[in-house]
Parts: sequence; structure tokens; C-alpha cells
Amino acid sequence: MSEAFERKETGRIEAFSDGVFAIAITLLVLAIKVPKASDLGAGGSLLSALLALWPHYLAFVTSFATILAMWVNHHRIFTFVQRSDHFFLYWNGLLLLLITFLPFPTTLLAEYLLHSEAKVAGAAFAGTLVAIALTFKGLWHYAAKNVRLLTRSIDPKDVEQITKQHRYGPILYFTAFAVSFVSTEMSAGLCLCLAVFFGFKGWPTRD
Amino acid sequence: MSEAFERKETGRIEAFSDGVFAIAITLLVLAIKVPKASDLGAGGSLLSALLALWPHYLAFVTSFATILAMWVNHHRIFTFVQRSDHFFLYWNGLLLLLITFLPFPTTLLAEYLLHSEAKVAGAAFAGTLVAIALTFKGLWHYAAKNVRLLTRSIDPKDVEQITKQHRYGPILYFTAFAVSFVSTEMSAGLCLCLAVFFGFKGWPTRD
Amino acid sequence: MSEAFERKETGRIEAFSDGVFAIAITLLVLAIKVPKASDLGAGGSLLSALLALWPHYLAFVTSFATILAMWVNHHRIFTFVQRSDHFFLYWNGLLLLLITFLPFPTTLLAEYLLHSEAKVAGAAFAGTLVAIALTFKGLWHYAAKNVRLLTRSIDPKDVEQITKQHRYGPILYFTAFAVSFVSTEMSAGLCLCLAVFFGFKGWPTRD
Amino acid sequence: MSEAFERKETGRIEAFSDGVFAIAITLLVLAIKVPKASDLGAGGSLLSALLALWPHYLAFVTSFATILAMWVNHHRIFTFVQRSDHFFLYWNGLLLLLITFLPFPTTLLAEYLLHSEAKVAGAAFAGTLVAIALTFKGLWHYAAKNVRLLTRSIDPKDVEQITKQHRYGPILYFTAFAVSFVSTEMSAGLCLCLAVFFGFKGWPTRD
Repeated sequence: MSEAFERKETGRIEAFSDGVFAIAITLLVLAIKVPKASDLGAGGSLLSALLALWPHYLAFVTSFATILAMWVNHHRIFTFVQRSDHFFLYWNGLLLLLITFLPFPTTLLAEYLLHSEAKVAGAAFAGTLVAIALTFKGLWHYAAKNVRLLTRSIDPKDVEQITKQHRYGPILYFTAFAVSFVSTEMSAGLCLCLAVFFGFKGWPTRD
Repeated sequence: MSEAFERKETGRIEAFSDGVFAIAITLLVLAIKVPKASDLGAGGSLLSALLALWPHYLAFVTSFATILAMWVNHHRIFTFVQRSDHFFLYWNGLLLLLITFLPFPTTLLAEYLLHSEAKVAGAAFAGTLVAIALTFKGLWHYAAKNVRLLTRSIDPKDVEQITKQHRYGPILYFTAFAVSFVSTEMSAGLCLCLAVFFGFKGWPTRD
Repeated sequence: MSEAFERKETGRIEAFSDGVFAIAITLLVLAIKVPKASDLGAGGSLLSALLALWPHYLAFVTSFATILAMWVNHHRIFTFVQRSDHFFLYWNGLLLLLITFLPFPTTLLAEYLLHSEAKVAGAAFAGTLVAIALTFKGLWHYAAKNVRLLTRSIDPKDVEQITKQHRYGPILYFTAFAVSFVSTEMSAGLCLCLAVFFGFKGWPTRD
Repeated sequence: MSEAFERKETGRIEAFSDGVFAIAITLLVLAIKVPKASDLGAGGSLLSALLALWPHYLAFVTSFATILAMWVNHHRIFTFVQRSDHFFLYWNGLLLLLITFLPFPTTLLAEYLLHSEAKVAGAAFAGTLVAIALTFKGLWHYAAKNVRLLTRSIDPKDVEQITKQHRYGPILYFTAFAVSFVSTEMSAGLCLCLAVFFGFKGWPTRD
């Protein structure tokens, strides 16, 4: 098959994946439920009810930043991938499955952050992010090992840099997972920092 | 009309269909409801409540893999279809209707897998997949019979291979449907295997 | 501004609209709620509970076919529209507003079809479709009257045919609206027929 | 990196953003809940129950028009932006976060418009729009200050016009925010007017 055809095929996989990222990131807000008027109580105000929803805002922002960072990372990988095969499709499918699953642990974290079972929810959330980081590592390693999936014109320094990034990703998220057994808030905060400070590194800009 | 115009028109149908596939696959997670804190009970833990949701995870993964495999299959067909007419539009519309409907039997299966009425839910789920497989068969046969809907440059071996695939698809899903009257778990497991092991065969790669 | 730039701009409006159509059509299924196990009762079976949901299936299929037909119609108009201005944007925005609103009267129709207040629900459903048909008429008339929004290469016969189609559309949907005061089922059935038999006429194929 | 590559990269950010806009605008309708038959009461009719939902229709139309106007504005900015860097990505990400969040204050406004706590809901709604307007201002200023993010061929008059628009946007929305402490209906009405009358100014047409 021609190179142009192969480019177009990986372009299609990327466009489909982009759609899934965009939908998953927009569905997150559905988990934040408006407080019912009947639940406000006699003395309770709407303002205090809205402030009490802070775990939902934290979980929303964390998952939003995470999916956005994942999209940046996914796009970066696809900038260099020129061909696909069945195993690559499987890796990408597993990644999308975990991304679309993310709204569930996000809601779980939000609902249980102030509950005595918070640690289970925090571990489920951070654990899902560990799984996503490992899948990204697998996707990239598969594409990079089989050098034939990458563009011929790739700079070895770029390969090295992305490989390094995927070496640290799972370790950092595993740290957040371990921290969740000590403090759920700290674990969620660490996940937010990872998305905001490290996630956007991957965009192919010239600065 | 020019060939380029026709190509663009089928391209638009495919892009719209891709959007529907991407949204349907991402909506599946909305069916997995977070256990309510008030439902955990005195001795019940969140962990055990999460583990008890396994039918939802199974249904989620099965439908996710199925829609992804359907997308691969749909894309493969459209690689060879160059023109469209009203009947082709109808076939494609029927296919999209069934794909967007899939979240309903998926939730049904998840909610009733451990219930005494599990077999009805399993039959509804596998039955929907039979209907999808038959619609795919109809779509392809219509396009391939009316040779004028395919690209002129198509290899007869490709036509034969896709035709064969659509001969076995409905039979295999019908088997899953029949099995659902014996064991719902086995039927759902078979549907998952069909999506994972056969579904991705259709991607036009060169391996 | 150059013609290529204008083409690209209307292309963007169409792509955004396509996304809205694809999402609205896929959200329809969320209205079909799985029967709760606790609602099945002692003697009630899941099968009979599923069959009792037929108004939901009817409303789902009707709205699905309607949105798909609207998408075909929308695409047909945009095949001939080459430029846009603020009023055209307003017409298109009003159209999208009504399309995204459609899931609400759809659910209303499904929930009340067997209720004593069915006629109100049927009138709301058919009335929304009248509003959509009138908005399409307005969009087309605005684009066609201001000849400058259409491509220079348009065949006057095509203009005449689309104009005729938009003359009958509102009348036919108004008939369905009037019928809803006699029989909700007949009105919904008529809306389904209008979508299936007339809606797909507009696709620019060569048959 | 080549100019074509940079163009393609900002094109990707815009396409992803467009997807988020299209999904957020279509999700708004999910907040309008069909009145339950059991809630109609003995003498209450469906028609009066539907009319009583008017705060939901108002909130729906206001947010719909707002997101559409934001999309027009976003597209206008991206017509002139040719390159991106990390800070630009952050600004855009913050904008998308606020857009995807909008369905929450929209529902809040609808549910509490007739409640004694209406002012809190109105302030939350208008406050979110102030935040969006400020983020747009930040996004544009960052891109325009760093002249290198804009296309070289940009007309200084266009820059001036967009800068002026983003000077007034936050002030106008802040006015709506201030009004919300006097009258929630007036504040929501003002937000609707801002979206309908000022929002569409930005589309690059030739009228």
C-alpha cells in the first residue's frame, strides 16, 4: 500500500480517538448534580450547598486536565506514527476504553472524598490513571520497537524524549496511587499537578 | 456527477457515521452508576460494592469492543464504496439506528445478569447484535451486488473476503443468541470474544 | 474575500452542524430507561416489561429517522450554499437549537403516549417538527433569495426542486400536528413516514 | 518547523475545541426533565406542567445562544492564530473547561429561578460567563501580544477590532453579574441578549 494511504488510515484512527477524547471530557460535568431544593433544609442556603460540592469540582477539574493532557500526549505519538497494524489497534482500543471509563472513577472520587470509605475511591481513581499511563507506555513501545510504525524522518532525539516521558509517567501515577492509601486529597491533588505541569509538555510547539 | 464529488459524498456519510460510533461508544459508561453511600449498609464496604458491579464492567467492555469492531468493519466497507444511493443510505441509517440503540440492551444485560430474568436480558443483547450483523451483511451485499457502488479499482479477492466475513458474522452472533437461552454469562462472553478476536480482522493494514 | 475562503467558512458551519446532528441522534437512546427489577412485580416478567416500553421504541425510531432526514436535507442545502452572513448564521443557529431540543418532546411523547394527556405530548412533538420544517424553509429562502449565498454554478431546476420540497414540508408536518388532536399514535406514525419516505429524497445521488 | 505544520497543529486544536463546543451545546437539553405523570396531580394538566418549565426553556436558550456565540468568537480568533505554544494551550484548555462546565450553572439557574435562593443561582450563572469572557480576553491578548502567534498577513484593523470586542465582553457580562443581585430574570435576559446581539458579530463574513 502507498505511504499516503497508510497516513490516511492512521489519520482516521486519530480522528476517531479525538472524537472519543472530546466526548469523554465533555461528559464529566454530568456527574455534578444540582442540589435539590428539598435538600437545602430550613436553615441551609444554596450557597453553602454549592460550596459543599467542592469534591465534585476538584474531581471534575482533575479529570478534565488529565483527559486534555492525554489528548496532547496521544496526538504527539500520532505525529510520529505513520502506519498501524492489529496489535497497535488493540493498544489504542484499550487506551480509549480506559479514557471512556474515567468518568466512573471520577464520580466515585467526588462522591466518597468526604466519606469514611474515601481511600477505596481514591485508589480506584489513581489506579485507573496508572492503567492509562501503562497503556500509553505499551502503545508507544509497540510503535517504537516496531520501527516500521514510525515515520522514516523521525529524529532519534524525539523518540528518546517520548520514551523517557513514558518511563516516568507510570511511576509518577503509581506514586499517586500509593499516596491514596495515606490521604485521598493529597493523591487527587498530585494527579491534578501531574496533568497540569507534565501533561502539556508533549505538544509539538517550537518554544 | 464527477467521481471526486461522489467520493466526497460517501466521505460525508462515513464522517457522520464515525461521529455516531464515537459518541455511542463513549456514552456506554453512563450506565455504570456509582454505588450510593446510603446503600453500603452497616457492615458493607465500598470495595465489595464495587466488586459486585462486575456485570456492569463485563457489559461495558463487551459493548465497547463490539462498537469498536463495528467501526473497523464499517470503515473497511467504506474504503471500497465510492458512490451512494437512497437504498444504501437506508441500510446505513438502519445500521446507525441499531448502534445508537446498543447502550439500552447493554444496560439491560448489566442490570439483570444476576437476576432470575437474566436470560431475557441476554437474549435481547445478543439479539441486537444479530440484527447489527444482518444489517452489515445487507449493507455490504447491496453495495457489492450493485457493483457500481464500489470503486472500479477493487481487487475481487477483497470483495470475496469481506463477503465471507459477512456470511459468518450473523451465524456466529446467532450462536451467541442461542447460547443465551442456556447461559447468559457464556453468551455475553462469546459476544466479547467475537468482538475482540474477529472484529479487528477488517482493518486495512499490511500485516 | 476569496471564494476559497468563503467555501471553507460555510464548510466549518456545516461541520459544526454535523457534529450537533450526530450527537443529538445518539443521545435519544438515553431516554429509554431499563425497567427496574423492583418494578417487575411478583408475577410480571421482564419480557412483558420490555414489550410495554413500545412507545419509547416508537418515539426513538421516529426521532432518529427525523434527525437523519434533517441531516440529509441540511447537507443538501449546504451543497449549494457557498457564502454565509449574519442572518444565515441566525437561521442555522435556530435550526440547531430546535434539533438539540428534539430529545425533550421525544421523551415526552414516549412517556405520555398511553396516558390520558397523550394529546398534549403528541401536539408538542409534532409542533416541534413544524417549527423545524418552518426554520428549514426560512433558511433555504434566505439563502436562495439572496442569490449571492448560492454557488454561481447552481442549476435553476435544483433550486426549484428544493424550494418545492420546503413548500410541502411545513404543510405535511402541520397535518401531523392537526392529526395529533385526533390520535397521538396516528400523528407519531405520520411523522415517522414523513421522515422515512420523504426525508431521504434530498441526498444528492445520481439515481 | 514549517509554517504548514504549524497551521495543521492549530487546526487540530481548533477541531478538538469545535467537538467540545458541539457536545456541550447538545448536552444542555438533558437538564430539561419530562414531568412525571405521578407529579401531575389530580387537577393538574400536562400543559400547565409544561408551561411551568419555562425557567428551563429560558436557561436552555440562553446557554445555547451563549455557547454558539462563543464558538463563533473562538473560530474568529483561530482564523488569525497560526502558531501555538504551551501557554496558549493552557488558555485554550481553561476556556474549554469553563465551556464544558456551563451545563451545571445552566441547570442551577433553571431549577432555582422561581426559588427564594434564585439570586445565588443567577450569580453563579452570570459569574461563569464573566469567567469565560475573561478567559477569552486572556487567550486573545496572549496570542496578539506575542505577535508571533498570529498570521503575518493579518490586518491591524482586525486585531484592533477583536481587541475592542474583548475589552467590552467582560464588562458587559460583569454588568449581568451585578444585575443578578437585583433581579435574576433580568440578569438571565441580559445574558441572552448579549449572546444573540453581540455574539454573532465575530463571524468573518463580508456583510
